[in-house]
Amino acid sequence: MFVLGIDPGLSRCGYGAVRQAGAQPEAVISGVLTTPAEVALEHRLAQLYREIRGLLARLMPDVVVVERVLFQANTKTAMAVGQASGLALAAAGEAGVAVAQYSPNEVKQAVTGWGGAGKAQVQRMVQALLGLPEVPSPPDRADALALALCHLASAPFVKAAASAMRKDGR
Amino acid sequence: MFVLGIDPGLSRCGYGAVRQAGAQPEAVISGVLTTPAEVALEHRLAQLYREIRGLLARLMPDVVVVERVLFQANTKTAMAVGQASGLALAAAGEAGVAVAQYSPNEVKQAVTGWGGAGKAQVQRMVQALLGLPEVPSPPDRADALALALCHLASAPFVKAAASAMRKDGR
Repeated sequence: MFVLGIDPGLSRCGYGAVRQAGAQPEAVISGVLTTPAEVALEHRLAQLYREIRGLLARLMPDVVVVERVLFQANTKTAMAVGQASGLALAAAGEAGVAVAQYSPNEVKQAVTGWGGAGKAQVQRMVQALLGLPEVPSPPDRADALALALCHLASAPFVKAAASAMRKDGR
Repeated sequence: MFVLGIDPGLSRCGYGAVRQAGAQPEAVISGVLTTPAEVALEHRLAQLYREIRGLLARLMPDVVVVERVLFQANTKTAMAVGQASGLALAAAGEAGVAVAQYSPNEVKQAVTGWGGAGKAQVQRMVQALLGLPEVPSPPDRADALALALCHLASAPFVKAAASAMRKDGR
């Protein structure tokens, strides 16, 4: 299964593609899409949408995993994250790629075993699980890889369903 | 000036295009884009994005006015509204159309003279200002027309700037 995790954000949108064929998941590519703060919001969002579409066209993942955005204290950031998540989901829908969503706590739980883990713990566990030579940085990139790992770690019936969907040509 | 108002939403996204040449603004077209609740989120968002792009391509407004989403008690709805607003803004950015945003209170203030006006008051005032034979319904449609009217009512320098941008071929 080939999974693309997306940690939505307007200033920094993390992405991380993980392939699992045998026992060991393998990081294929990861990085951060950025949009300049001095550009008008609509142009930043249009740019982000273009770049996410480009990633999907290039990588053709089986599943796109987008962080489920929760509303917290910083409503200004939450708004931008919500808008970015809408674009990521729409791009996946447009590309006909299956989508999964997990909350930040579900991802931390899956990757570190503790839903309240900090950024640095997630980064170190992602490094260990993927056998990376360095800690993935910035955290947005590690979070995107963690989203992909969370999906790969989820119950076998999810994998079976995804596999069946691939056979159906979805 | 030809202004397209968009009241973002996932289940119902209102749109309303208003042209002002002389003293009297004129409603050109208005309606509601809907996406079915039983369809997966990513397909609903992709459909909404396609339809908003289609509206922009067909109408070619000078300005798109998108309601500025504020976070309120119902965070589940707010998330969907935020995602829909991101799509509307990205579609406008992609189309190279100028964008303006106003908060719900600014729109109510501009159209009814009172920032705390109810849905029915906004609907009646939009009907009166545009000389419509019937009250625009549902409220999402009236809200979209109200957004366009709010922009047309805003300070003359906004109009001058929009006019200058049109002359520049933007």
